[in-house]
Order: sequence, then structure tokens, then C-alpha cells
Amino acid sequence: MEKPFILVVNDDGITAPGIAALIDVAKQFGEVAVVAPDKPQSGMGHAVTLNAALRVNSWEKDGIQYHACSGTPVDCVKMGVSKLLPRKPNLILSGINHGANSSINVIYSGTMSAAIEGAMEGIPSIGFSLCNHSIEANFSAAKIYVAKIIKDVLENKYQNSCLNVNIPDIPAEFIQGIKVCKQASGNWEEEFDERKDPMGKSYYWLTGKFVVYSNDEDTDEWALKNNYVSVVPVQHDFTNYKLINAIKHLENA
Amino acid sequence: MEKPFILVVNDDGITAPGIAALIDVAKQFGEVAVVAPDKPQSGMGHAVTLNAALRVNSWEKDGIQYHACSGTPVDCVKMGVSKLLPRKPNLILSGINHGANSSINVIYSGTMSAAIEGAMEGIPSIGFSLCNHSIEANFSAAKIYVAKIIKDVLENKYQNSCLNVNIPDIPAEFIQGIKVCKQASGNWEEEFDERKDPMGKSYYWLTGKFVVYSNDEDTDEWALKNNYVSVVPVQHDFTNYKLINAIKHLENA
Repeated sequence: MEKPFILVVNDDGITAPGIAALIDVAKQFGEVAVVAPDKPQSGMGHAVTLNAALRVNSWEKDGIQYHACSGTPVDCVKMGVSKLLPRKPNLILSGINHGANSSINVIYSGTMSAAIEGAMEGIPSIGFSLCNHSIEANFSAAKIYVAKIIKDVLENKYQNSCLNVNIPDIPAEFIQGIKVCKQASGNWEEEFDERKDPMGKSYYWLTGKFVVYSNDEDTDEWALKNNYVSVVPVQHDFTNYKLINAIKHLENA
Repeated sequence: MEKPFILVVNDDGITAPGIAALIDVAKQFGEVAVVAPDKPQSGMGHAVTLNAALRVNSWEKDGIQYHACSGTPVDCVKMGVSKLLPRKPNLILSGINHGANSSINVIYSGTMSAAIEGAMEGIPSIGFSLCNHSIEANFSAAKIYVAKIIKDVLENKYQNSCLNVNIPDIPAEFIQGIKVCKQASGNWEEEFDERKDPMGKSYYWLTGKFVVYSNDEDTDEWALKNNYVSVVPVQHDFTNYKLINAIKHLENA
């Protein structure tokens, strides 16, 4: 059997320790190529670059092709699959993100949007996030679970699947295992920190507090709070099927 | 009864003709405030600005407060609701977008992401798009259907609802009515247009062709092709419930 070809991407940028940890695990499973942003792209969601041209710097190191792209995480997947890679990847891995992408954060996350884009292209994709924002986070426990989940997805090839994997920031011996969950309901309560520039004009920094609304045992937030690795399968049909009947009368408006 | 307070936002920028058309309709239904990007922000998806501060320029015209914001469409909703507006809006309207946001384009669309963000904040929200990219598009037929749908949502107050409304670019007398639909399956087949700068270095423009995979009668693509206004209710729980059982064995990995 041919070795799987694995595209690795992230949103913290190609020099982040998290992507190095992911490449380390990925190369045990196949041939790896990296297409990642040349600068941090957190919170970019599913943004694509329409109003500017993209630049790419490429190099090889230890048998792995690296491409640093000026675009968003989703741009990186599109450029990788449609332009830069020699063939279609069998698997796309995104991360390991420095910081959680559980609950509604899947919608803001460049890490997860890259994985969703992979699934949209028909390639099984997994986004990994460690619940620690620090650049100095320790990925050693995370790598154990990253390997377990990659192995399963390569064996089972769930069609067009995308998994959102979040890993608690604790030593491996305290992790209780893996929980397959749904996305917890939650949201950010925003505050804008208003400051004055030297000319006396206002500018604003987005800040806020994340609030979990549902904390049921079948959610990713529950799993993480109870020291489990959470795995949420993610899809990209946004239709709210439950509302279709309630608004059907609009057809007579 | 107090007049509804309506926040209007878009992704083509505060000076686009589409948002002027939407404001025109909205002010028939209540008090209007506008928070919109100070420049075009198409394809920004659910991006938020984390690495830069935001600027806002505000003015009043014909009794309406306008706020031009340096951020993304989602930033505009957050700033409007959490900082700029005197009270929580009863309704958020996004658009009218110059160009369709049917099928999978909901995921890339700044217009629709602003509406989804509104629903996440617990405010009924509607995104409107006209199937014509031109800056000179004619919004007169669109405005008739925008009014019908706003009226219905204000009357029925579907909780946390978000609607994705696409309007064919034809005169009103040829529009067959409204269809409540699901998001058609489809995707972009990308090509990157590679060019050389004067120094001989490559740069790339994202281009591509949109391909519809499903064309069933219950989809938005079918509705638009058959001259109906399409209305897709949209939600923000990305969990792929169908896959949960298929991957449950991961808990034993």
C-alpha cells in the first residue's frame, strides 16, 4: 500500500510550536507536506483572500516540503490542494492550535475552518487544539492522542469527515480518555476596551468572556472539564432543518 | 407598541448601493442604525479582528446613525450590539449583498456571517443577497421581497433565527414567489492564476468555478434557477450528528 500523503496546516503560523508537534506525529503515518500562514491568523474563521494576491515561500527540510503562504488558513488549504501539492492529499491535519476551539469557537477558528475546507474538498480532515494559549505550551500529552485519532481516521476513512479535537492541558496520566461529543452551546460576552490615541481619537480592542450555556455530559465542554479529549464530528450544511416548517408560510407572503 | 430597533450591516462596505437599498426598506419598519465596514469585506466569513484595534467613524443623516468600522462584518455586529448602539436591536439585517450567497457560499460570506453572529447573540437576523455582483445592480425587485420577509420575521419573532435570503436578478414580474429551502450541496473548483511581478517572483490570484452537486427541488440553487426567492434557515451548531455513532469506538482508542 502506498504511504498516505498528509497535508498539515494551522492558523498560528508556520513557525508555531503547535504545528511542529503535529508534523512530528504526522510523519510517523506517511509523507507530509506543510502549507501554513506566514503569520498568525487566529480568529480568521472561513475567510478567503479575494482583494489581494497571495505570495508563497517554499523550502525543504528533513524531507518535508514547507510552503509559507501570505493568506488565511482556508487559503492555505485551497492553494495546497489546487496548486502547490504534487497530488491530492489523503488526509488534512490542522493545528495543533495554541488554545481551545470547543463549543461555538469552531465558527471563529482558522484551525477548524481549514479542516472544514478540507472536508468540503472531499478529504478527511482533523483539527487539533490544546487548551493552552501559551507559546510555551507542552504538547507531549497531546501528541499521544493526536496519534491515536490519526490512526483511526486513516484506517476508517470516514467520507468527507471533519473532526474537531480538543485536548485538555494536563499531563497524559491525568487524561481520562476520549469522548465523542456534540458542540456545547455557548457564546462570547463581548466588551470593547476603548482607548485614546495620542491625537485623542478612540480605538477599540475586542475582549470578552466565554460563557457556556449547556454543560450536559454529551458536550465537548463537559468532556474537557472532566479531563477527557473531546472529539466533535463537524459538518458544513448550515441548514436549520427544524425551522423549515415553522417558516414554510413565507411561501404565501 | 414601541417601534422595532433595527441594526443594518453588510460586507460590501457602508457606501455600497446594496446597503442603501436595505436601509430604505428597513426604515419603513422601525428605527434604524447602521454599523458597516469602512471598506469591502467580501469573503471574510466569520473572521474577527484579534491582532489589531478597531476604529469607528460615526455620523447622522436623515435621522439614522451611521458607524463605519475598520473591522469585519462580524466585528460590526459585535461592536454594534456591545458598544455603539443605545440598546439591543430587535432585528439585524445584513446586505443587500452584491452577489449570491446560496449553497456553500454561506460559509465564506461576510454578509451571512454577520447575520449568523446576530442569531448567536439571540437576535433574529436576516441576510439578503441579490444574484448580481455588479455595483450597478438594480435592487428594485429585491426590495419588494426584502419587505415581505422583514414583515414576517418581525411578526413571528422566530427565536435565535437566521435566514439566508437570495433573490434572482430579474424584474419583479418574473419572480415566481418565495421558496423555503435547504442549502444545496456544492463547492468551488479553484484555480490559482499565477503571475510574475517585475522582479520575476510569483504571486497568485484565487479564481474558480462554482459547481452545484445537488439540484433537488428542495434546494436554494433549484429555487434560484427557477426564478424563486430562496429562503434557507441557518443554524450554528456544526455538530455532524450522523457521524457520532460511526466514530464512537474512538472512546476505546
